[in-house]
Amino acid sequence: MFQSFKVTARPEQGPPRLAALRAEIKRERLDGFLIPRADAHQGEYVAPRDERLAWLTGFTGSAGFCVALGDVAGVFIDGRYRTQVKAQVADVYTPVPWPDVSLSAWLKEQLPQGGKIGFDPWLHAAGQISTAEKELEGSGIELVRSDNLVDRVWENQPAPPMNPVKAHPLEFAGEAARDKITRLASGVQDAGCTAALITLPDSIMWLLNIRGSDIAYNPVAHGFAILHAAGQVDLFMAAQKLVEVRDHLGDEVSIHDPVDFLDAVQKLDGRVQVDAGTVPQIVADVLGDKMVDGGDPCALPKACKDPAEIAGSAEAHLRDAVAVVETLCWLDAQQPGSVTETQVVTRLEHNRRKDNALQDISFDTISGTGPNGAIMHYRVTEETDSQLQNGHLLVLDSGGQYLDGTTDITRTIAIGEVGDDEKACFTRVLKGMIGLSMMRWPVGLAGRDIECIARAPLWLAGQDFNHGVGHGVGAYLSVHEGPQRLSRVSHVPLKPGMILSNEPGYYREGAFGIRIENLVVVEDAPALPGGDDERAMLNWRTLTYVPIDRRLILVDMLTAAERSWLNAYHHDVAEKIRPRLGPDAQLWLDAATAPV
Amino acid sequence: MFQSFKVTARPEQGPPRLAALRAEIKRERLDGFLIPRADAHQGEYVAPRDERLAWLTGFTGSAGFCVALGDVAGVFIDGRYRTQVKAQVADVYTPVPWPDVSLSAWLKEQLPQGGKIGFDPWLHAAGQISTAEKELEGSGIELVRSDNLVDRVWENQPAPPMNPVKAHPLEFAGEAARDKITRLASGVQDAGCTAALITLPDSIMWLLNIRGSDIAYNPVAHGFAILHAAGQVDLFMAAQKLVEVRDHLGDEVSIHDPVDFLDAVQKLDGRVQVDAGTVPQIVADVLGDKMVDGGDPCALPKACKDPAEIAGSAEAHLRDAVAVVETLCWLDAQQPGSVTETQVVTRLEHNRRKDNALQDISFDTISGTGPNGAIMHYRVTEETDSQLQNGHLLVLDSGGQYLDGTTDITRTIAIGEVGDDEKACFTRVLKGMIGLSMMRWPVGLAGRDIECIARAPLWLAGQDFNHGVGHGVGAYLSVHEGPQRLSRVSHVPLKPGMILSNEPGYYREGAFGIRIENLVVVEDAPALPGGDDERAMLNWRTLTYVPIDRRLILVDMLTAAERSWLNAYHHDVAEKIRPRLGPDAQLWLDAATAPV
Repeated sequence: MFQSFKVTARPEQGPPRLAALRAEIKRERLDGFLIPRADAHQGEYVAPRDERLAWLTGFTGSAGFCVALGDVAGVFIDGRYRTQVKAQVADVYTPVPWPDVSLSAWLKEQLPQGGKIGFDPWLHAAGQISTAEKELEGSGIELVRSDNLVDRVWENQPAPPMNPVKAHPLEFAGEAARDKITRLASGVQDAGCTAALITLPDSIMWLLNIRGSDIAYNPVAHGFAILHAAGQVDLFMAAQKLVEVRDHLGDEVSIHDPVDFLDAVQKLDGRVQVDAGTVPQIVADVLGDKMVDGGDPCALPKACKDPAEIAGSAEAHLRDAVAVVETLCWLDAQQPGSVTETQVVTRLEHNRRKDNALQDISFDTISGTGPNGAIMHYRVTEETDSQLQNGHLLVLDSGGQYLDGTTDITRTIAIGEVGDDEKACFTRVLKGMIGLSMMRWPVGLAGRDIECIARAPLWLAGQDFNHGVGHGVGAYLSVHEGPQRLSRVSHVPLKPGMILSNEPGYYREGAFGIRIENLVVVEDAPALPGGDDERAMLNWRTLTYVPIDRRLILVDMLTAAERSWLNAYHHDVAEKIRPRLGPDAQLWLDAATAPV
Repeated sequence: MFQSFKVTARPEQGPPRLAALRAEIKRERLDGFLIPRADAHQGEYVAPRDERLAWLTGFTGSAGFCVALGDVAGVFIDGRYRTQVKAQVADVYTPVPWPDVSLSAWLKEQLPQGGKIGFDPWLHAAGQISTAEKELEGSGIELVRSDNLVDRVWENQPAPPMNPVKAHPLEFAGEAARDKITRLASGVQDAGCTAALITLPDSIMWLLNIRGSDIAYNPVAHGFAILHAAGQVDLFMAAQKLVEVRDHLGDEVSIHDPVDFLDAVQKLDGRVQVDAGTVPQIVADVLGDKMVDGGDPCALPKACKDPAEIAGSAEAHLRDAVAVVETLCWLDAQQPGSVTETQVVTRLEHNRRKDNALQDISFDTISGTGPNGAIMHYRVTEETDSQLQNGHLLVLDSGGQYLDGTTDITRTIAIGEVGDDEKACFTRVLKGMIGLSMMRWPVGLAGRDIECIARAPLWLAGQDFNHGVGHGVGAYLSVHEGPQRLSRVSHVPLKPGMILSNEPGYYREGAFGIRIENLVVVEDAPALPGGDDERAMLNWRTLTYVPIDRRLILVDMLTAAERSWLNAYHHDVAEKIRPRLGPDAQLWLDAATAPV
């Protein structure tokens, strides 16, 4: 199913639904109710059934929540969505700038006399509730566990997804599920726990070498797991999803109905490891004093990819590059003003789908031309679809889910004749992206310790961008994966095998946007002659091989080292991708990868 | 009094003193005693009376502590002092690598059955003790408040310093003490406290616009202060020090005997703000539940210099530069092999002392040639004094305390013909130092967010250095001042008016050292054409104007921007310093500042 450009929510749907919800709030003698954009697994994407925030308010962003009180309903959104929310919600909703204004601060202001706010304890992480409760201490405002009141009033709410789970071949996973279970169970034991709870779907997929399709763009299936220190796994997942993988799962995995998960948790003896940041509050309630906030045991092992996963990802990137290069070649043959954003999206997806290993795209392609490029998380719809005009920059951010790896690439493309100001900004973004690509750094540093390298060229011109430099990426799993990040908030040391994006950008509201993104994998850096003997260092290996638009580069702004890097990169692109292309695309590639 | 090169402690002094201390430990029915290198004010420098660690063990480093048990005595030292400690202590002492091994971990290993460890509650900060006590929970090891047992056995222990305090003129301070008191008292009130305790001498000096000379190189006097939210200050300082400043201190400051400090603290009502990281444990004991860990109220205001302080510092740096330039000019006229490290130190101090505003040097000059340059905190003595040989690099790190400002500068000087490897390393350090100097960055970032800029050129060659990039510097106060730092551990946002050092280095053990250090002050960065309208940024203004040795620069390794920075810097050096020099030094400066 190709990417849809339908508008999925309308402001006018909001008021009657809010009225119905308020009736339920009143019936329960509550003063309000929390509506997060979340399911019990705290992933970035949710199933249609869990799109409660969009259903209620009309706001379709990937993060945010609503607090419905008797006479006001706040929609909390972060900096990315300040413009979008205004267009999407009716005036019965009040946008609240978050995290500038916290839930607790807003509640205290709205309810100076105190009050009872209901929440669904499956949809909120324990850490989130405990933080809010601490901040609300002494305010007279109480958070109260409740049925989901939105579900009561949502007629025709979609059913939970029930899609089949498939085995993920050892060829791509690299490590047998049995070995992962043994390895991680021993860590749970070492931490003095009898079991660990795994509530994140991509952790379960990774641990058991399975993949699902319950969620758009993410090959995961909803479920819960208990990893026992003795080396057994209880998997709580609907049996109908697991028909194809019963044998694959083997003796060490027992399958249970998801409705039995809480009972099984209740029966656990001893200390139980959870990730308080993501475990549902209702699970924490059942665990009580047994709960140990030791993190999801899969998170770090999953982030440090197996050599087979890295090899698969590298190979998937080469095939993905062919689809992108063919699209760019086609685009360059079109006249400015003759193509729209959605046509680029569809053409790119069409080219990707020629590869039989493609399971899906890895997220809604961002195709933003001219001013639309300045909207960082732009999702083009039938209503916003715009012509690529002469002088525009097109930001094209896309990726694919292949059996052997997940890709995510952004290129910014010149449409016709582009101004020098745009080129100067593009060159600065490129300098940052190259600077980080070239970097090597001592073992032990986190993303936050090096991310400024990618910003420095912009800073020197009084410019910057309001997103992180990069995110972790899974191996045929989530395109946004923790704990590794290139961000000021990331304290997790970078380790060999972690795949991240390197994607600085620049956005001038109402004018243009720029982003250049490669995926890179952390490796042990080779020793250098004259380097410090005792100093172990890491560096990147690039996975993405697609030309960077030479027409947008002001070559005089590059240092000799940056120019060398770029020419060597384009040389590698030609060497790796050219043999996979047809004759027209080969000609295009020769020009696109010529030295600057 | 010129810098002394005497060896101040000998290994052989240690064993009999340890034996005497152990007798006291036994008499008190303790199992051990803690000997920190600290006084009640937790400063970097201590008075001779407080050099208990050096007196007992022979170790003279600026950080560390000893734990004397019945049959083992650990000397805890950080990475800078691993070599030095071996030469300085007798084998009754066991060097312990700290913080790799914590006090609590070591105690647990040494005393598996538990035990009682005495400590002087004046010499340990409350935060330090509470951390250790938490780590020792369940071990059976107890930290026990005690008299100072070292003082009991130290015959001829020097008396506490009793030097006169002087008023610091408003011309240099910029803000009247009365105004500072009013401003800070209002902050104490806003924090819901009735008073704040100030136990750091440089905070007291800054608040009351006074300067002392109780400690070498630091213009401070020992004492304590209570800042009442109502706007009064109780100063606990020996009356004999204050003869000259009684009028200056005015009505809002009451003078008390230091022995009455604890009683006064005891009598305080309500919540009392302290910095738990530096307040003595005995003060915390007296405060009990009244204590609020809100930090030293002077720390941040003191760090953000007044325009008059910045102007004074800039002017002091120009005069200081004359002394350094004259020394470098003299040094270049000497034949390799004809001058020793101490001769350079003495000549430099002689040149600084020509300035009547010089009160003292700001720390023991580091003058390390050849392999000695690789010892980061090298203090040259009569025994280590070495000839500056052909092919050496000389690391010369020094500073002055002037009435109008504190300086700290490092230059690395070529002695004769230097090898290309040294030059390549020097050029990398220079690139880092220039890269950070040129930087501008968004408001709100801390030192840790940008310090890698100064390391990146070394990283790319597989090299790095094991110290921070820079430290805060006072305005005629401590040459090492918090909370601002250019370090991976510094979370304090950089703010206009903060003075810091920018001093990357490189050290090859047994071979050579390199460090280049300028002081820089944070300023609001001017808006740039094409820069983001809404993005407030900061940048540096350089305070230090002394040539960087052109003979050590491999010009081809510099980018065009780095080369422009260097030539512009040298142009400024010539413009600002040349008119202040004699004819010989002028000629030398002309060559030293010629464009590369």
